Amino acid sequence: MVDLKKEKEVAKADILAAFYDIITPEKREKFDELAALRSNYVTVAVENLNQEHNASAVMRSCDCFGIRDLHIVEKNHQFTVQRDIAKGSKRWVKHHHYSDVKYPTSKCIDSLKSQGYKVVAMTPHEQEVSIWDLPLDEPLAFFFGTEISGLSEQALALADTHCVIPMYGFTESFNISVSAALTLQIIRSRLEARKDIDWLLNEDEQIDLKLHWCKQIVRNSEIVEREFIQRLQQH
Amino acid sequence: MVDLKKEKEVAKADILAAFYDIITPEKREKFDELAALRSNYVTVAVENLNQEHNASAVMRSCDCFGIRDLHIVEKNHQFTVQRDIAKGSKRWVKHHHYSDVKYPTSKCIDSLKSQGYKVVAMTPHEQEVSIWDLPLDEPLAFFFGTEISGLSEQALALADTHCVIPMYGFTESFNISVSAALTLQIIRSRLEARKDIDWLLNEDEQIDLKLHWCKQIVRNSEIVEREFIQRLQQH
Repeated sequence: MVDLKKEKEVAKADILAAFYDIITPEKREKFDELAALRSNYVTVAVENLNQEHNASAVMRSCDCFGIRDLHIVEKNHQFTVQRDIAKGSKRWVKHHHYSDVKYPTSKCIDSLKSQGYKVVAMTPHEQEVSIWDLPLDEPLAFFFGTEISGLSEQALALADTHCVIPMYGFTESFNISVSAALTLQIIRSRLEARKDIDWLLNEDEQIDLKLHWCKQIVRNSEIVEREFIQRLQQH
Repeated sequence: MVDLKKEKEVAKADILAAFYDIITPEKREKFDELAALRSNYVTVAVENLNQEHNASAVMRSCDCFGIRDLHIVEKNHQFTVQRDIAKGSKRWVKHHHYSDVKYPTSKCIDSLKSQGYKVVAMTPHEQEVSIWDLPLDEPLAFFFGTEISGLSEQALALADTHCVIPMYGFTESFNISVSAALTLQIIRSRLEARKDIDWLLNEDEQIDLKLHWCKQIVRNSEIVEREFIQRLQQH
């Protein structure tokens, strides 16, 4: 078992090395630097956003705060990324879509829970726990709802906990993309202070992510990858 | 001198009491609660925003983080508040406009400096000081620029210091409204930990603000105020 795993890892690293040979040194450096700062200990899910610029801004904030995955639940609205607002972050944040099923919210939450995430419903109304006090001992999936009605009842019911960002004004809630950025900023700064939690990607996960990024910028990447693998198998 | 000042203050409190008699108890409570959480130690200025929804979201974030004043520099774009995004914050955040002059940016910065503010240009490019390390010993005015080109050269040159929000992604900058919210969140949480700085409004400033808020919700407030003053003077 151990040998098999090692063999598989080596192969992956070799494929990455082959991709690294055909991209610029600047990109290689950037990929190495940023993969080491990426986290899947924290993840974000958005439910049924009805304003494109908000959805795109959430994706951009995930990139800015080093979040590897964004989960997108689509009930009525097709999630479209606005190019000027997402600023290319679509290539750097892995996005997982939950649509074309009857209950996309529960499908997304089930999937997150099965991956070991504690699902945190972000809401301006409930005041169970402040984002500053939320326990960090488990991987966290933050769930954000629409601008108009907040999260669906289903999402609120299925979540493991509800959480609020402290506010000091008349306005009852932040803009959704602002909420996501504020949440990620607090959680990242709190995790950085915790040396006892492994919240950054491990080496294996970093290689996977760098491979994913390479494929985002190399034309016909699937064909290129197949050729690399064939070449490596012949050696 | 002292007596004159006291006389003036008492009068203001009396006018407020008169306004409080004609608004709902809920509003009175809200005004008392939120004025005590408002700050003019930190203020925000935006330069020439070209996307309405961003400008409105900045105003909403000012309200949410208890910022009393928003300064709006208008060169080419008339600042318009989008009702659905500003969520009524236009009434609760005092907005000061700098337009109809040849150099609105320097007019705004001059005005802020004369009020004792250290002007902080927020930029994704310069890395002089992180928002987490910015000294808090002086009142701070945070200056945010347009989405496309950032702050004008003039604003960057006239500012007392440049400041950056730490980022961990490919994207070079946050959305402007997100930047403002992130800045205010960090600064507010850092100020809350500093018992040696008087960063909240004093009692006199709170009365002024509550009077301002009353006038936002009372119809024909100027006429009403004049009547209150006349009645109080007769007593």
